[in-house]
Amino acid sequence: MDPESRLATPASTSARTIWREADGVTILDQSLLPFEVVHRQLDSAEDVAEAIRAMRVRGAPLIGATAAFGIAIAMSRSPEDADLDAALSCLGATRPTAVNLHWALGRMDNHVRSLPAADRPAAAWLEAEAIAAEDATLCAAIGEHGARLLESLADRREGPVRVLTHCNAGWLATCGIGTALAPVYTAWARGVPVEVVVSETRPRNQGLLTAWELREAGVPHTLIADNAAGLLLASGQVDVVITGADRIAANGDAANKVGTFLKALAAREAGVPFHIAAPSSTLDLDCRDGSQIPIEDRGADEVWTVRGLDPAGRVVDVRLVPAGTRVANPAFDITPARLITSFITERGPVEPAALRDVFDGGTR
Amino acid sequence: MDPESRLATPASTSARTIWREADGVTILDQSLLPFEVVHRQLDSAEDVAEAIRAMRVRGAPLIGATAAFGIAIAMSRSPEDADLDAALSCLGATRPTAVNLHWALGRMDNHVRSLPAADRPAAAWLEAEAIAAEDATLCAAIGEHGARLLESLADRREGPVRVLTHCNAGWLATCGIGTALAPVYTAWARGVPVEVVVSETRPRNQGLLTAWELREAGVPHTLIADNAAGLLLASGQVDVVITGADRIAANGDAANKVGTFLKALAAREAGVPFHIAAPSSTLDLDCRDGSQIPIEDRGADEVWTVRGLDPAGRVVDVRLVPAGTRVANPAFDITPARLITSFITERGPVEPAALRDVFDGGTR
Repeated sequence: MDPESRLATPASTSARTIWREADGVTILDQSLLPFEVVHRQLDSAEDVAEAIRAMRVRGAPLIGATAAFGIAIAMSRSPEDADLDAALSCLGATRPTAVNLHWALGRMDNHVRSLPAADRPAAAWLEAEAIAAEDATLCAAIGEHGARLLESLADRREGPVRVLTHCNAGWLATCGIGTALAPVYTAWARGVPVEVVVSETRPRNQGLLTAWELREAGVPHTLIADNAAGLLLASGQVDVVITGADRIAANGDAANKVGTFLKALAAREAGVPFHIAAPSSTLDLDCRDGSQIPIEDRGADEVWTVRGLDPAGRVVDVRLVPAGTRVANPAFDITPARLITSFITERGPVEPAALRDVFDGGTR
Repeated sequence: MDPESRLATPASTSARTIWREADGVTILDQSLLPFEVVHRQLDSAEDVAEAIRAMRVRGAPLIGATAAFGIAIAMSRSPEDADLDAALSCLGATRPTAVNLHWALGRMDNHVRSLPAADRPAAAWLEAEAIAAEDATLCAAIGEHGARLLESLADRREGPVRVLTHCNAGWLATCGIGTALAPVYTAWARGVPVEVVVSETRPRNQGLLTAWELREAGVPHTLIADNAAGLLLASGQVDVVITGADRIAANGDAANKVGTFLKALAAREAGVPFHIAAPSSTLDLDCRDGSQIPIEDRGADEVWTVRGLDPAGRVVDVRLVPAGTRVANPAFDITPARLITSFITERGPVEPAALRDVFDGGTR
């Protein structure tokens, strides 16, 4: 198939990342996007763990919800304490940085463990579905609050509000309309002129997922190499930066996809506001500051290779350097609280210093 | 051919980027590196212009020398004033940012124009060869001065000095041993323990050229995605940043490959020194500051595609997004003087504020 036609017509995906089918779940396999739309059935906690580890599902909120479904699947197969422990352990070991994973697993454990074994499967499915449904609600609330912010920026300038984002924190990263892209989608739906500057996000190129989402939604966007963000910010071509987060420490330091920190530095230098859009399930009050957030190292292969469509339209991983080339591949970095204008949460924008007051003992 | 074996054994290239053959030049075609070592004969000013534009030769010092050879080739074919004007015009329009291009063309024009037509070909070849030879001398001097700097860093720590560089400013970018890599090669040859952190440098991935050079030279190195530089700097994994430059304004603002500015910001944040290694031919005292440096936009295709080896070992450009996806692809950014610790020049390290004093009316 001609690669051009294939890339140009993203198949309709019904904008759903995960759903229950019988005693398993179906996911949209994001490791093949934006090149192929492939759904995959997961029928065991091990399947789910593999899907999280291999980034077939990704994005902090979606990782949490998917892990919750993993517990439900495990309980459907065998609901004993040992099975619950094994599933929690297997799923908890998949990816270290996104705290939503541990938040969701802790919630599932609390909900299920006190029940008799016979009641566990049904209860676990209900709770996992609740986590997914709540995530959609949180996304919608983030979209509301963030859209107001974009509207106020639009009121202050001619032409569209230019939003720079990094990685993918759109619907693909959640069970709803996304976190960082939720304000964009909500504002766009209301007729607020918006354009998105999409940072490619090497080594995994999640910016291509963002471009794919935005193309499908008809939202104007411009793709850039990660390196170009500094010049665009310094030369007045960006009005606001919005990213997601994988874990937010109590002091407001935030872990997000590697490269976020560089954009935050350039935003400060340019006097451009830098916001992180995230639900409270991404907040980890047990982490005092960013130095306590574990940073995942994802190994060399992601840097050695790039996935794309070859001239015949086949998905291939092309090799950039010989195997054995030493690589450092930290998947996240820490943006210090002092660089963050606000967290756009389900309760509205919260300044870093106010996070603990707003959320401690709260809805989590 | 197996891609692995191909990538792992860079053919010996004798470390030469350009040389005269008869009344033309032979270049190492860098647009195919690090995948294929292909030499190409250039027999007209138009050939030379195409090679510069398509980045078959690249790097500010090499662009200058190549353009000088382009004038010599043109004079060999027909040495009239109109031919000289046409060659200057054709070569001068190739790439806007690197000032070495205009410096070298200006020098060739001055040297050749006052001579009788019959004397021009021989004189032009001599002058172009002189520019190339001087470039090699400048690189060696930069290597000397920079190596002292690395030695002093090595004296202050256990283990190797970890040098972060961006893009390629090695021998491939010059007629000598490079600019940013000259201190590394010189220090390494003297037994100073050095390791290089190589930033991939999307969209053209010139970091792969740097890794290829360092592999051939046996210098330890680690490849990173451009996004990872912030974390590495913030977490104490880099001791010094050294990059090249394409044009340095009188006030010390410096244009270099896009992404350099982000690294300079992160270096300042981490308290890590940030040096630019460049010969005085890269200095443009006619530019008051960085705002007067033209930034080349290289178009969408470099961002739409990535070149690599497919599983069968063929060089292919894989497609990442549909043609028509809007792209911003500035090839350079400006690092403000305040973020630059020193310029490592042929006369030693010079602080940004001292550039004009050291070089005005000097050797240029």
